[in-house]
Amino acid sequence: MINVAVCGANGKMGQEVIKAVKSAEDMLLVAKIDINDGEFATIKDAKDSVNIDILVDFTQPKSIYENALYCLNNNINIVIGTTGLSDMQIEQLEKLSKESHTGCFIAPNFSTGAVLMMKFAQMAAKYFNNAEIIEYHHNQKKDAPSGTAVKTAAMMAEAVNGTDGVNDKIGDFTNGNCTEIETIAGARGANSYNNIHIHSVRMPGFMASQEVIFGSNGQTLKIRHDSTDRECYMPGVLLAIRYINVHKNFVYGLNNIL
Amino acid sequence: MINVAVCGANGKMGQEVIKAVKSAEDMLLVAKIDINDGEFATIKDAKDSVNIDILVDFTQPKSIYENALYCLNNNINIVIGTTGLSDMQIEQLEKLSKESHTGCFIAPNFSTGAVLMMKFAQMAAKYFNNAEIIEYHHNQKKDAPSGTAVKTAAMMAEAVNGTDGVNDKIGDFTNGNCTEIETIAGARGANSYNNIHIHSVRMPGFMASQEVIFGSNGQTLKIRHDSTDRECYMPGVLLAIRYINVHKNFVYGLNNIL
Amino acid sequence: MINVAVCGANGKMGQEVIKAVKSAEDMLLVAKIDINDGEFATIKDAKDSVNIDILVDFTQPKSIYENALYCLNNNINIVIGTTGLSDMQIEQLEKLSKESHTGCFIAPNFSTGAVLMMKFAQMAAKYFNNAEIIEYHHNQKKDAPSGTAVKTAAMMAEAVNGTDGVNDKIGDFTNGNCTEIETIAGARGANSYNNIHIHSVRMPGFMASQEVIFGSNGQTLKIRHDSTDRECYMPGVLLAIRYINVHKNFVYGLNNIL
Amino acid sequence: MINVAVCGANGKMGQEVIKAVKSAEDMLLVAKIDINDGEFATIKDAKDSVNIDILVDFTQPKSIYENALYCLNNNINIVIGTTGLSDMQIEQLEKLSKESHTGCFIAPNFSTGAVLMMKFAQMAAKYFNNAEIIEYHHNQKKDAPSGTAVKTAAMMAEAVNGTDGVNDKIGDFTNGNCTEIETIAGARGANSYNNIHIHSVRMPGFMASQEVIFGSNGQTLKIRHDSTDRECYMPGVLLAIRYINVHKNFVYGLNNIL
Repeated sequence: MINVAVCGANGKMGQEVIKAVKSAEDMLLVAKIDINDGEFATIKDAKDSVNIDILVDFTQPKSIYENALYCLNNNINIVIGTTGLSDMQIEQLEKLSKESHTGCFIAPNFSTGAVLMMKFAQMAAKYFNNAEIIEYHHNQKKDAPSGTAVKTAAMMAEAVNGTDGVNDKIGDFTNGNCTEIETIAGARGANSYNNIHIHSVRMPGFMASQEVIFGSNGQTLKIRHDSTDRECYMPGVLLAIRYINVHKNFVYGLNNIL
Repeated sequence: MINVAVCGANGKMGQEVIKAVKSAEDMLLVAKIDINDGEFATIKDAKDSVNIDILVDFTQPKSIYENALYCLNNNINIVIGTTGLSDMQIEQLEKLSKESHTGCFIAPNFSTGAVLMMKFAQMAAKYFNNAEIIEYHHNQKKDAPSGTAVKTAAMMAEAVNGTDGVNDKIGDFTNGNCTEIETIAGARGANSYNNIHIHSVRMPGFMASQEVIFGSNGQTLKIRHDSTDRECYMPGVLLAIRYINVHKNFVYGLNNIL
Repeated sequence: MINVAVCGANGKMGQEVIKAVKSAEDMLLVAKIDINDGEFATIKDAKDSVNIDILVDFTQPKSIYENALYCLNNNINIVIGTTGLSDMQIEQLEKLSKESHTGCFIAPNFSTGAVLMMKFAQMAAKYFNNAEIIEYHHNQKKDAPSGTAVKTAAMMAEAVNGTDGVNDKIGDFTNGNCTEIETIAGARGANSYNNIHIHSVRMPGFMASQEVIFGSNGQTLKIRHDSTDRECYMPGVLLAIRYINVHKNFVYGLNNIL
Repeated sequence: MINVAVCGANGKMGQEVIKAVKSAEDMLLVAKIDINDGEFATIKDAKDSVNIDILVDFTQPKSIYENALYCLNNNINIVIGTTGLSDMQIEQLEKLSKESHTGCFIAPNFSTGAVLMMKFAQMAAKYFNNAEIIEYHHNQKKDAPSGTAVKTAAMMAEAVNGTDGVNDKIGDFTNGNCTEIETIAGARGANSYNNIHIHSVRMPGFMASQEVIFGSNGQTLKIRHDSTDRECYMPGVLLAIRYINVHKNFVYGLNNIL
């Protein structure tokens, strides 16, 4: 059994993690830590009372770095879903994780489905000369395109840099398109890396969905991920807990263990 | 049995019509007319030899008006798929059709599926405050958005003009959306009638597809049409032939008989 | 302003209705009725204190008939989402509604999107000789196919009974299919009305989705509805409230007012 | 430049290959071989006249083994799309290819998109406990489910055999489903490997499409491939030509070079 503590236990994500850990047969929930009304107010309090193998942190940008330092200095493996760490802080945590032989798993996105979608899109990019991305979000999302869509396009572009002498893939993803005229501006979407066009749909009824479409004469290949509830992050969190419990190393990004 | 003549018999559409008429159990193909190498060179030649109930015309913008005049003046019902008639010419044909009690069916789009998609989108528009359109075409299409997408948006906007005191539908289709920022220009697509956003995808693998998406909290409704071959126009052509054979009146647009 | 009372105010659906009524600009929430801990315990209690135009009932099969009788006998228009009324009870309510000139709106499904999907499927059925249905539900649903899918198939079949001399639609929806061999039993799904095949997918990640697919040579038409949250029923409930407030008649089924 | 000969040059696939080779900038079409009216009647005839680097064979089951033997014995690399080779014949060709250091590429499916779909489905299978397959074909296909769907299910099942101590994936793909009752037989589809359910749709408007759907709480992941024209096989054929021109080894299956 893996002894798991949850930090940020009263937050929306924390509560989902608690449910998920409780229903995992190989895990034991040993501590619910939350500065507001938690079973324990601090990680130290919890550590003094129970034996923690892994701490999962979904707290605040302002507290995450201190939390992580404490864990790595006290031989507690940590899985971090909280955002807000700077590049320099991440580097420090990697160094400390290696020196202390204590696991540290950081992921900006714990959705297995979304991470697989990006990975598959990157793999398919080598074999198609035409691709576009459509992403769908609820209508309270301010920015378009989404960070996930831009990241996906960057990964696809990266896949076609260089050539192996066999695959003739060139960098451009609007290969062979005729000169296009927008009779209403914006029709062709956002032109991103290597001319991958991204289209952003915003309306109620969606939480977060994305479809990557590849085409060549006579065929299309579509990879689509829909999330409708934050429960979707739990399989990724459990996977990270199990992974870090065995490997006790530093990992950035769920994609590295899928 | 309905005696059908095809004008423009050697063109791509003409050949499809010939196949379709031959396989319809209630029709007899009586004449293949084509200025280039046809069984008959002109409609008059055909009329002098065989009995024609309906003539289907898929020829050229430059010849269609003369062809239609000839038919209406000679008691031949005509189904017109050829584009290029001016508004004034269409008015003249309507007048002549009524005076001569001879059927004249003109349709810019004979795809039953596409016409139904537009009709359903218009009907659904009254019940959703949020909607967007995505259209997919091959990469040799020059303009974006497609004419069909713009027409669909216009029909949807029309549906919400006025109010009946029961349905509180307002005109705007981005109802409740927060202020949006495009970090790459064009991400949110072409802003058309009543803020219906249209997104145009262009790549090989598609001929002509369109999806109209409606959303409200907790649900989405999607109406999608895919065409992959010009055979898709034949059910609409046969429907028009049968309709005009019975009604012998003037009709503009397949939607009026669906 | 329409004065609305909610009966079953503490149930899941009741709470959604309260939120929806509160956010509707033309409605006023005047009473939260619930036998367990409600603002009022009975409809009578509420009626004695406040002026009710419309009562929305999402309670229990065992109480709905009595509730409806009370409303119709006391000049309170009622919108009923509670299931469990027998055919005979529905008939009685219709009679009483007409005699008392008091509105009574009963709907087995308040999802506007689902009802429109069924209506569009029925309309399209006349123009396609081939159609199948795929429905997707969570994996705690016991029966397959879903009631909505079977109802949709029945409506599609109904649409092609009889002929109008123009449309040659015949009854069978596997028109022209070759003799099919299932190498694994069940591959071709459930064969329902007029050979409409229904396929039932069951897995977590879906709440309730359905896609009706029509095909002919060179084209497909798809009508798809996805529900991800019970909020999806609220636009239909509000629509019914507004309708019955104006018309004060008897209506069974949301489809009759869409 | 790669000198390419096409055997079966007058067949439907042969003609597509000729078009594809002609439009590839790094290839030269040197011979059109066809027993019926070809530029050359036999491979030997062609070899005597022109210099062949790669021969692409889309002929008949009855001739393919002889053709392959001739090529491998005469230092001509061969790409084989023709079906009908027995397992023993394939073994012989592998042996001969290795001995002669002459390339031999055999693929049952040259569609890059279909092969990637299968590969991605296999990869995703490790991370989801629930998955089903829907495949769509034209209505002249006799058997259901399709060979590709069954092959995909087998690959997905294979992916979850054994355990790595980190991922808790178990073999069953209807994990957590309640006891299901089919009120119409077949609703839940064909139950294949590890309870992967396969649903087969048959209607005009599709050539060959397949969607693999994975679900967990709050998310779904879909991988879909649509083919609408046999042109879709050409990128895979060109890829095989280029690969075998460099590596001159034995390869069975396009998936091994993607």
